[in-house]
Amino acid sequence: MTATLITGIGQLVTCDGSGPDGLGLRDDQAVIASDGVINWIGPAAAAPAADTMIDCAGRTVIPGFVDSHTHLVFAGDRSAEFTARMAGKPYDGGGIGTTVAATRSADDDQLRSLIAGRVAAARAQGTTTLEIKSGYGLTVEEEVRALRLAGEFTTETTFLGGHVVPAELAADRAGYVDLVCGPMLTAAAPYARWIDVFCEPNSPHAFTAEESRMILTAGAAAGLELRVHGNQLGPGPGVRLAVELGAASVDHCTHLTDADVDALAGAADTTVATLLPGVEFATRSPYPDGARLAAAGVSIALASDCNPGTCHSSSMPFMIALAVRELGLTPAQALLAATVGGARALRRTDIGAIAIGRRADLAVIDTPSYLHLAYSPGMALTMALDPDSRERQ
Amino acid sequence: MTATLITGIGQLVTCDGSGPDGLGLRDDQAVIASDGVINWIGPAAAAPAADTMIDCAGRTVIPGFVDSHTHLVFAGDRSAEFTARMAGKPYDGGGIGTTVAATRSADDDQLRSLIAGRVAAARAQGTTTLEIKSGYGLTVEEEVRALRLAGEFTTETTFLGGHVVPAELAADRAGYVDLVCGPMLTAAAPYARWIDVFCEPNSPHAFTAEESRMILTAGAAAGLELRVHGNQLGPGPGVRLAVELGAASVDHCTHLTDADVDALAGAADTTVATLLPGVEFATRSPYPDGARLAAAGVSIALASDCNPGTCHSSSMPFMIALAVRELGLTPAQALLAATVGGARALRRTDIGAIAIGRRADLAVIDTPSYLHLAYSPGMALTMALDPDSRERQ
Ligand SMILES: [Zn+2]
Ligand SMILES: [Zn+2]
Repeated sequence: MTATLITGIGQLVTCDGSGPDGLGLRDDQAVIASDGVINWIGPAAAAPAADTMIDCAGRTVIPGFVDSHTHLVFAGDRSAEFTARMAGKPYDGGGIGTTVAATRSADDDQLRSLIAGRVAAARAQGTTTLEIKSGYGLTVEEEVRALRLAGEFTTETTFLGGHVVPAELAADRAGYVDLVCGPMLTAAAPYARWIDVFCEPNSPHAFTAEESRMILTAGAAAGLELRVHGNQLGPGPGVRLAVELGAASVDHCTHLTDADVDALAGAADTTVATLLPGVEFATRSPYPDGARLAAAGVSIALASDCNPGTCHSSSMPFMIALAVRELGLTPAQALLAATVGGARALRRTDIGAIAIGRRADLAVIDTPSYLHLAYSPGMALTMALDPDSRERQ
Repeated sequence: MTATLITGIGQLVTCDGSGPDGLGLRDDQAVIASDGVINWIGPAAAAPAADTMIDCAGRTVIPGFVDSHTHLVFAGDRSAEFTARMAGKPYDGGGIGTTVAATRSADDDQLRSLIAGRVAAARAQGTTTLEIKSGYGLTVEEEVRALRLAGEFTTETTFLGGHVVPAELAADRAGYVDLVCGPMLTAAAPYARWIDVFCEPNSPHAFTAEESRMILTAGAAAGLELRVHGNQLGPGPGVRLAVELGAASVDHCTHLTDADVDALAGAADTTVATLLPGVEFATRSPYPDGARLAAAGVSIALASDCNPGTCHSSSMPFMIALAVRELGLTPAQALLAATVGGARALRRTDIGAIAIGRRADLAVIDTPSYLHLAYSPGMALTMALDPDSRERQ
């Protein structure tokens, strides 16, 4: 067992729920991690000896970001579609088919290399846990392949056969739903922790409330835990379905009625509202009202939704800057949503905060305070810290 | 004389005005630079031998960004003021006094080190030319010091004694304007290429049209070229004053009347409208209408305004993403504004485009196309390329 002392911390942001804003800010602290788990936090001057040391040189230390919503298993490029959308073409989910074709055409090594590059890019900006969804395969074999490859990078794998109805089955929606709920689910379940569905009656490509309910119910019966894409393109049934079925998270939450907000507030111990403002940025859509959710007592997470169609970014600092500018969250609320909020959306109590017994998944910000996540947008100041590596000493 | 061959270029974006969008996109090209100047561009397969080689490994190559508007000479941190503003406190320019006090308190080496860090951060995101203003000194000695230090990093130094009326002279505006136009200008002029003024009758701290005219006219008489901060907080006289006096640029241009747009369009050969969307992002203000300016034939630049109060970011890729999302510029228009547009705003014909005889100030984007500047926001994909260094081979 190797103990690593992390010292020279300027501002320690534990996100442990303490203090007036829940950030648990502490000065003059050091942290010791052994085998990837935090086992000592205390005054730097009183730190016991350790095998190795990381000197943060006065930088801010935060929990590594928990990005609880990504679609990293894909091939192809949709920058031209993005450009067309910026010139006025609306988004309805139809472009997903482009990525499905490109992803099916890529071999395992190509996909593995693409995922690895994306995971590294996320880590380079401070993300230490990533959920990764399938959903660009949409056949039994291709969905299994996506989950198998995702599983090489994370334990938080999500089966999203219910992403869109694939083009070749557009005339047989019911048949595709049966496939997802039947053979595809059976084959995918061993490779997935979660099941998710794009519940969006406003898109002809996505799924209605009844189709979504069938998919989620079948997933639960197969032992998967539930997540939902809901209320992205307009008011819809996603939030209420997620709450009713006890999903861990309902993601987007862009268009909510008062009843939706009440339902989320009442289910705050069970269901997290995960906000994905990078999507509204990249689709030039109205943003969700984060301040309204926070005021109502809703449990909030912030994630990237990194995907080729509607948010080609995994930068959690960028998402925090958007959350403050556009969603009305305070910098503290945004950082909590990106760390312990993401952990809650993944039902994880071992990550998302800096506390004894939690994983030593840390990130450093090269500034005197966490406020710079929002105050210095686009500046690439944050990176994951690896306590088991000597290279950052 | 050492010749460097830059090869392995995926997409070469010359920004030389050719092609349907002015980007001058070229495939399969290589570039040779000698002593920092481009002296050959042609098919990679036909490239002559050179002393050293940089292999771009398929990445996109663009002109280095020309950030024609920054305030990098400052000390202190205003992240708390930013946070208060996000919570609802409006911006009126008054916080500048905080930075003036901190900057006056810093010694030369402290300021030099702060500027160097900021220049390096900008370069790390692809910026190869920076204009740097004074304006946080506001005494004869302090303004000269700021310009002297700025001049260690750039030839594009701007005297901005007319930033705000310093707190200690708030009761004697006329006396401060006389100081700026007299002894301060005389002392500053040898260290500055440009003179600028914050022309903003909507702020009690900034300057009226008449005060601005006095300052600019005095500056021109002292041999300085003219720039103007105008029309930021509301409609105002800045644009018309800039055009009337033949300023190289009027910056912000957030609130424009039809007459202002007409004036800018008529003066497109002389006066550039420099848009600074990072300011609207960080002050939660309405954005300027870039599409309206482009349609009218206005000459447009895009810059960061990097400063501690209203935009603590020097990321030109972030500014491009905002310009596409919020200002209605196409990705091509935004990139041109950030390169050759910035050069025009500085009246430079030796930078801003990749062409024979121009400086080899290049940046690489680690993606297959320039579109990713807008398509992949927050991703830190761009960096300056140094043709005189072997380290990037
Ligand atoms: Zn998604
Ligand atoms: Zn400025």
